[in-house]
Amino acid sequence: MIRTPYLLFLGDAPDPLAAKVAQGIRDWRPEYALGQFRLPGCKADLGLPDMTLEEARAAGAETLVIGVANRGGVISPAWKHVLIEAMMQGFDLASGLHNLLRDEADLAAVAAAEGRALHDVRVPSVPYPIATGAPRSGKRCLAVGTDCSVGKMYTALAMDREMQARGLKASFRATGQTGILITGEGVPLDAVVADFMAGAVEWLTPDNDPDHWDLIEGQGSLFHPSYSGVTLALIHGGAPDALILSHEPTRTHMRGLPDYRLPSLEALRDMALALARVVNPVVQVVGVSVNTRALDDETALQCLAEIEGRMGLPTVDPFRQGAGRLVDALAAL
Amino acid sequence: MIRTPYLLFLGDAPDPLAAKVAQGIRDWRPEYALGQFRLPGCKADLGLPDMTLEEARAAGAETLVIGVANRGGVISPAWKHVLIEAMMQGFDLASGLHNLLRDEADLAAVAAAEGRALHDVRVPSVPYPIATGAPRSGKRCLAVGTDCSVGKMYTALAMDREMQARGLKASFRATGQTGILITGEGVPLDAVVADFMAGAVEWLTPDNDPDHWDLIEGQGSLFHPSYSGVTLALIHGGAPDALILSHEPTRTHMRGLPDYRLPSLEALRDMALALARVVNPVVQVVGVSVNTRALDDETALQCLAEIEGRMGLPTVDPFRQGAGRLVDALAAL
Repeated sequence: MIRTPYLLFLGDAPDPLAAKVAQGIRDWRPEYALGQFRLPGCKADLGLPDMTLEEARAAGAETLVIGVANRGGVISPAWKHVLIEAMMQGFDLASGLHNLLRDEADLAAVAAAEGRALHDVRVPSVPYPIATGAPRSGKRCLAVGTDCSVGKMYTALAMDREMQARGLKASFRATGQTGILITGEGVPLDAVVADFMAGAVEWLTPDNDPDHWDLIEGQGSLFHPSYSGVTLALIHGGAPDALILSHEPTRTHMRGLPDYRLPSLEALRDMALALARVVNPVVQVVGVSVNTRALDDETALQCLAEIEGRMGLPTVDPFRQGAGRLVDALAAL
Repeated sequence: MIRTPYLLFLGDAPDPLAAKVAQGIRDWRPEYALGQFRLPGCKADLGLPDMTLEEARAAGAETLVIGVANRGGVISPAWKHVLIEAMMQGFDLASGLHNLLRDEADLAAVAAAEGRALHDVRVPSVPYPIATGAPRSGKRCLAVGTDCSVGKMYTALAMDREMQARGLKASFRATGQTGILITGEGVPLDAVVADFMAGAVEWLTPDNDPDHWDLIEGQGSLFHPSYSGVTLALIHGGAPDALILSHEPTRTHMRGLPDYRLPSLEALRDMALALARVVNPVVQVVGVSVNTRALDDETALQCLAEIEGRMGLPTVDPFRQGAGRLVDALAAL
């Protein structure tokens, strides 16, 4: 578990998109985001106070989170200076970069000498068990997509926020690097060894109060051949009571696979339900989440209405409309 | 790739079952099995010549294969002496044990000094790619099971043997530890990191002659929640042209999961076909393989006839009847 709150390190981000991990933390856990740290030339700005390391420590920051994708896969000397100084001042470090903090000899040495933690959230840190398939208390909701990167994490986070606002019991359960950095804990599922994938998801979603919902971050797609095994492990390890179908209506082919068309929402519904029933016979599809970012307001509303009429399920874009109707659907189960 | 032929190390096997990896090599690759090496008290006997290390080297053996499950998860001093002496005499070592050869300091030191290879086949040795889902030449057949351990590997090996005997082009493609030790190469799929599972299977089954069949060793079951993600990665990475349904008719629940009933063969057929069509629209289910070991001859034949009538597919126990009818079905595609 990563200690909060955070100082968000934006480095020399070449554009705002490079800082999207930091943006996610700022959007979804503003209470963790005390300030930002930028180097000369940084083109990203989260609208947070620019803080020195000293100022952030004085304000209570515990971890410096690398919220930016670096260039060329190396941790640059300009970054190193800040990261080492941060550890000297008491910060832990957290990163979702491909190149690991722990593999940098100087960072590892300072962390060991100063007693600081290096959180490389791409690397599993827990010896996960083999899944047992045993029933557990509490309820779980999982978003499954017609493709990768269609808004499954966003949907779960929006539902979590809505449920917290209503005073309902809910936990967002992160299964990817960005989600883990946003919430400070989770399972980096795509880096788990095959035999332990479903067990890792069971570990992430343990017994809970009967009226508590785990909102599990989805991954991949049953219809995406590169990652479908990860998705099925999420379904069988998560044993969801509720499924949300996630979709991006303007996508013309599966992400990264020009020759693969997206499945219909009906095909996704039928396949996901049949597989989820293996572990939870009462599972239901409760709604549809559509990422309409590429559509203007009127077209977006038409698209949502068309899908809602066709599927007979509450259909929303959680970014445009909030996740209220999806939460209503969970509450009605 | 493990150098062949082998001397099979049976150690102090407490019973014949403990030597089942060695038995598999002897049954399926007798040309690799030059002899056996037994310690005092060994209760297993493969019916192979007992050889000293010197005799086996003189006969051409290149690798000493640990074909026995050890007791208590440690490599005993009694074994160590033989393993070290073998490396001194020119043998490589290969093992599918949970405790790794490479983690034993003395074995690693001798291997390094003598230039010998230590093959721990539970550990992936290749940086597998992310799957592309791209079509490839040649044909592929995969057995999918109603449960784990129902005879999928045996089915593929029996089909391979039959196709070799007929002069057809075929390759058994190992995806588990025993299969890898039998054939000398393959992918230890259950130990591959999640994101690379399907890519590892693509790597294992590359472009080939149009009339060549890869007979891919199956793993797990789509209906077994502990391992279903591995199975789906096999289906989507393998992109099979032909599926064989594998079943054990006396099993009362999923292996290791007392509360899970087995799916019907019809449910397996429908689910596997729907998922396999995502990557290969022309895939067909061509036959059923039934492990009837627990049944007497008459009951076994009744069972096979009942399934064949119900499913409308050639249905055999490859151990009792050979895999001829399954190969006929492949040839007829």
